[in-house]
Amino acid sequence: MATLQAIKYSRGKLLVLDQLRLPHENHYDEVSTAEEAFDCIRSMRVRGAPAIAIVAALAHAVELHNGDCTATDPEEVIAHIESRLDYLKESRPTAVDLSNAITLLKLATRAANLEGLAHPEAKEAILNTYIKTAEEILAKDLHNNTSIGSHGAAWLQQQYNASSERPISVLTHCNTGSLATSGHGTALGIIRTLHSEGLLKHAYCTETRPYNQGSRLTSFELVFEGIPSTLITDSMAGALFNLHGERMNIGAVIVGADRVVRNGDTANKIGTYQLAVLARHHGVKFVVAAPTTSIDLETKTGSSIEIEERKREELTQISGAIVNEDGTVDTNRTARVAIADQRIGVWNPAFDVTPHELIDAIVTERGTVVKGADGKFDFGQVLPERLASVAARQL
Amino acid sequence: MATLQAIKYSRGKLLVLDQLRLPHENHYDEVSTAEEAFDCIRSMRVRGAPAIAIVAALAHAVELHNGDCTATDPEEVIAHIESRLDYLKESRPTAVDLSNAITLLKLATRAANLEGLAHPEAKEAILNTYIKTAEEILAKDLHNNTSIGSHGAAWLQQQYNASSERPISVLTHCNTGSLATSGHGTALGIIRTLHSEGLLKHAYCTETRPYNQGSRLTSFELVFEGIPSTLITDSMAGALFNLHGERMNIGAVIVGADRVVRNGDTANKIGTYQLAVLARHHGVKFVVAAPTTSIDLETKTGSSIEIEERKREELTQISGAIVNEDGTVDTNRTARVAIADQRIGVWNPAFDVTPHELIDAIVTERGTVVKGADGKFDFGQVLPERLASVAARQL
Repeated sequence: MATLQAIKYSRGKLLVLDQLRLPHENHYDEVSTAEEAFDCIRSMRVRGAPAIAIVAALAHAVELHNGDCTATDPEEVIAHIESRLDYLKESRPTAVDLSNAITLLKLATRAANLEGLAHPEAKEAILNTYIKTAEEILAKDLHNNTSIGSHGAAWLQQQYNASSERPISVLTHCNTGSLATSGHGTALGIIRTLHSEGLLKHAYCTETRPYNQGSRLTSFELVFEGIPSTLITDSMAGALFNLHGERMNIGAVIVGADRVVRNGDTANKIGTYQLAVLARHHGVKFVVAAPTTSIDLETKTGSSIEIEERKREELTQISGAIVNEDGTVDTNRTARVAIADQRIGVWNPAFDVTPHELIDAIVTERGTVVKGADGKFDFGQVLPERLASVAARQL
Repeated sequence: MATLQAIKYSRGKLLVLDQLRLPHENHYDEVSTAEEAFDCIRSMRVRGAPAIAIVAALAHAVELHNGDCTATDPEEVIAHIESRLDYLKESRPTAVDLSNAITLLKLATRAANLEGLAHPEAKEAILNTYIKTAEEILAKDLHNNTSIGSHGAAWLQQQYNASSERPISVLTHCNTGSLATSGHGTALGIIRTLHSEGLLKHAYCTETRPYNQGSRLTSFELVFEGIPSTLITDSMAGALFNLHGERMNIGAVIVGADRVVRNGDTANKIGTYQLAVLARHHGVKFVVAAPTTSIDLETKTGSSIEIEERKREELTQISGAIVNEDGTVDTNRTARVAIADQRIGVWNPAFDVTPHELIDAIVTERGTVVKGADGKFDFGQVLPERLASVAARQL
């Protein structure tokens, strides 16, 4: 099966699919500098926590490969890399994958083996270490996603005793598919795996206002892969569970995560929190798909997660390809139109935080974490060393 | 304060504001026949249960005034009127206001006093009776709305001990204001009254996807009247209650109704049901504003309300005034744009049903109905005769 690629990379060259132009246009931007990556992330041409981290890491790899660093002294080369990474971190401060990738890249670069090397070999060794580490982040992400898909599908199969005779339906929010990652996807990866194993009856996706990642991107992926699927507005989730939950055997809401903190509280696209409340009210499982890179054990609870507020025009205006009088879509002509009174006050938080009480399972590439008898998530199952290290420091 | 008018009527002439062109354009359509009224309602150029009933009733009054009825025999004149009303009923079968208005118009017309009258006086008497009855529906609606505003504001004031020092904030969905009625509005009428009495801290309104009645119409009315207000997407209601409920003293979700049935179950714009679930989860009151004409005592529970499903393009495309490169809105040029993958399957129910368990109060022009100790709404408080008559027939 042909698979979507949001990120095309070969050493020295990075192409990133402009997701704002989807589903009408498949346009790749060449991203060769940290500035271009910053702009690409900030403007949401690339989105999804893993994809953002990969684009940032690889964009700097490309500029280093292209000779961007003029320093020669090893300490100066490292300082140069670190300052570029610090700059990139500001493109999306909420995204812990990005922050984790930057930490990893800094540590790896500092640990480059320079023994017995002088200029220019020492610089070369540092640059090579950085570039290889960035490339490994890409490779590892793809592997992680297929693992998340398998773990999540297995857990859901078990919860509902699902089979090809008794397949389950699911609802997803935002886009967490091939477009948000290196491939396969996280939440949508679980849906892909359920489908490929014959366990999926139907996939529903929300529009995901105000940026319509669901209607533009997830719909595109679902249609692309021939998964039986239906789009609903964010306002229809409750009615869907109520009217079709039983008939369609709707078993789970599956979402991704921008950040999961130590107690399991999860920051994700605005609208996630209320889906969790609605799922609980209707007895539907609420599942978070998150690579361990999205888990932030340093932060104890969701209350300390800062919520970015975005501009009013995201609610009051929208862009799209022009629909002709005869109903055909002209993919070569786009327009931006006003869809609200332009004078109204607007609140536009990019994310919300779902408390761990409303989450049934957090699926990582290392396995599915569920709450213990005490109602608490224990990430020691999947991140024993990181948890021990945080615990030791916080004693 | 200037007040909005969706419907401008004088005998023989009916003008209806085209709400699809709002907030960018104030265009009135002349509606002179039942066919024009049917089209106006069906295409949603006019919406809101009371406004639909008024437009249907008055459009037929205009055509009768203009000599549309060629029959001369009284029975044939009545048959003509009834057949036109039956046709109009099909323009929005869910709307009980329309159905009730038609029943009332038929009864009044049949009861016209024809004693001692021959042609042409008998026909004149029937036509006059019809026209006066239709005009009374308009006048009564305006009176009802101001009463709903007073009753609703008083009930909320009492629940929260609200005052100008301790004003409350509310959330509303869809449009239930001057644009949906003859004036003042139902749910928005309560908000108007709260505001005029200094009891309103802030009004929030949802976009109300897929038709954006909230962002186009309610926003327009709130701005028009200078009510402090903020637009949110339908996906932000939960986060709003969670993050700002306490600080903003959010006391109620106030919505209108397409139909309230005997046990209090309420059909209203899609998205209403999940707002009720979210309100309950956050301890926010859920209030339905409905003139008694929207109360259908013949129907016992909401499960027998048929839910109209509308076309896919309402989710996958949207129209609006074009936004120029410099960010200004060109109100003279509109475009329709594609905002989703055009191939995705779509579910588009126009309404949902909120069970009475999730409703705290139903505000009518005759007073506010709350549940008794048995958890049941008793419409005997406001509709004693109608309830007794239904009960007698259903014995």
